[in-house]
Amino acid sequence: MIQIVEAIAPLRAWLSTPRRAGRSIGFVPTMGALHEGHASLIQRARADCDVVVVSIFVNPIQFDRRDDLDAYPRTLEEDLAVCRAHGVDVVFAPSVEEMYPTPMACTVDPGRVAQHLCGRYRSGHFAGVATVVLKLFEIVQPDVAYFGQKDAQQLAVVRRLITDFNVPVRLEAVPTVREPDGLALSSRNRRLDASERALAPTLYRALREAESRIASGTADAAAVTRAAAALIPRDDRLRLEYLEVVDERDFQPVERITGPVVVAGALWVGRTRLIDNVRCPPPSHA
Amino acid sequence: MIQIVEAIAPLRAWLSTPRRAGRSIGFVPTMGALHEGHASLIQRARADCDVVVVSIFVNPIQFDRRDDLDAYPRTLEEDLAVCRAHGVDVVFAPSVEEMYPTPMACTVDPGRVAQHLCGRYRSGHFAGVATVVLKLFEIVQPDVAYFGQKDAQQLAVVRRLITDFNVPVRLEAVPTVREPDGLALSSRNRRLDASERALAPTLYRALREAESRIASGTADAAAVTRAAAALIPRDDRLRLEYLEVVDERDFQPVERITGPVVVAGALWVGRTRLIDNVRCPPPSHA
Repeated sequence: MIQIVEAIAPLRAWLSTPRRAGRSIGFVPTMGALHEGHASLIQRARADCDVVVVSIFVNPIQFDRRDDLDAYPRTLEEDLAVCRAHGVDVVFAPSVEEMYPTPMACTVDPGRVAQHLCGRYRSGHFAGVATVVLKLFEIVQPDVAYFGQKDAQQLAVVRRLITDFNVPVRLEAVPTVREPDGLALSSRNRRLDASERALAPTLYRALREAESRIASGTADAAAVTRAAAALIPRDDRLRLEYLEVVDERDFQPVERITGPVVVAGALWVGRTRLIDNVRCPPPSHA
Repeated sequence: MIQIVEAIAPLRAWLSTPRRAGRSIGFVPTMGALHEGHASLIQRARADCDVVVVSIFVNPIQFDRRDDLDAYPRTLEEDLAVCRAHGVDVVFAPSVEEMYPTPMACTVDPGRVAQHLCGRYRSGHFAGVATVVLKLFEIVQPDVAYFGQKDAQQLAVVRRLITDFNVPVRLEAVPTVREPDGLALSSRNRRLDASERALAPTLYRALREAESRIASGTADAAAVTRAAAALIPRDDRLRLEYLEVVDERDFQPVERITGPVVVAGALWVGRTRLIDNVRCPPPSHA
């Protein structure tokens, strides 16, 4: 029987029993609007851990734009059905007041990992992400937490959060789930109309081009991103916000590709902003 | 038999046994140079908890001045004797490399609690304090942590850290221990020469004056601090850095005293900077 818990104290009380019994706790933090990408995180947690906790919380402090926060899909009943179908034990679905009862004084400053890519365009976004993830870690105290590779910079921020603060949580990165045409699953995809949906996979096509250039030995990051960006069609509905090559650990821009990198892009499709990325080993001759 | 542990992994391994057995863990974080103030923290932990952990770590990232870091007293052998004498179970004494193996990306931003008083004069100090305290909490995972009221703004920062991040630690504030003439015990007192030592208690005398003015009904904070500061003798060796009335929770300056406040001061005595504070209930007529 799935537990649905809206407050911190009863969640902690519920979790104390399995924790004391030495049962492992797997945690999948989400903002709801669950899709197959989230389902793959839950499946991994279900396979690895004794107890699976999913949080559903649209975190206001990670939105830089009020309209984006307001437009973010909220589909709690469907989300609970997904959680039930995948054998989740506890859904933690707090209110904003439960998570932020008073204005925050302390927040997490994610430092250099948040300087570039999305961090440059979405002011305060990763501070908000890192802060809520830390709070959720402290509330749930999981053994393992599952994050999608799709949000690669978020993953890098959470990895540094865990390392830098010595948080006793193991991080598992789960591969991106894609539509047959390559579009990465995202809660934002449901905002696309039919013509936008047809254009959306061009971001992944561009990233695959970058991947293949790197695999075939191009070490000049500018040449890689130029070739990749050329695959984005000229279309009034499309605007490439960034497409960059960064190092995997600190998400700093790379000029010569000599180690493992992430190529990440953000593409506006109409009024919807999509992000995606590919991880690339260094070119074999490097 | 006291355990002395220098690395995180063996500390966690050692603590996992009492933790699994449901024994309570009390934690006293220190920078060493232990005195009777620290001893009173340890005694409280010893009385309350099954296991007492003391950390000894001079945290470089909370020092704004290199000369202050270099001059900070390091007295590990004497510190261990104090810990032994007070029945400490584990001393955690990590190296800088163990605590900061790579340059930090994520740090704690303590926000408005760190804006005034020491936060204004010691740039980055409370970010460094909050960051290391969070790290130590994650490493030790104590049930209760003990901090001295003497470092009142630090206490307020740690209180907000725990509240804002939902850290499952109970904070216990322990009253300041004083010399017979009122001087608050501090590791920095040992830097005072005899003439400086004779001048040092004037800070507490000024704070007591503020306390008595508030108790007798003065609600105008400026009048309180003026009367208090007037008690600091004119002397070339003395420089009052600040003397202010702030609210107890967020350490914001107060003009009219209507709720509980802290009166806090920082006094340079020669080349040594001393801080002290008094907590005051609101004047009874308020």
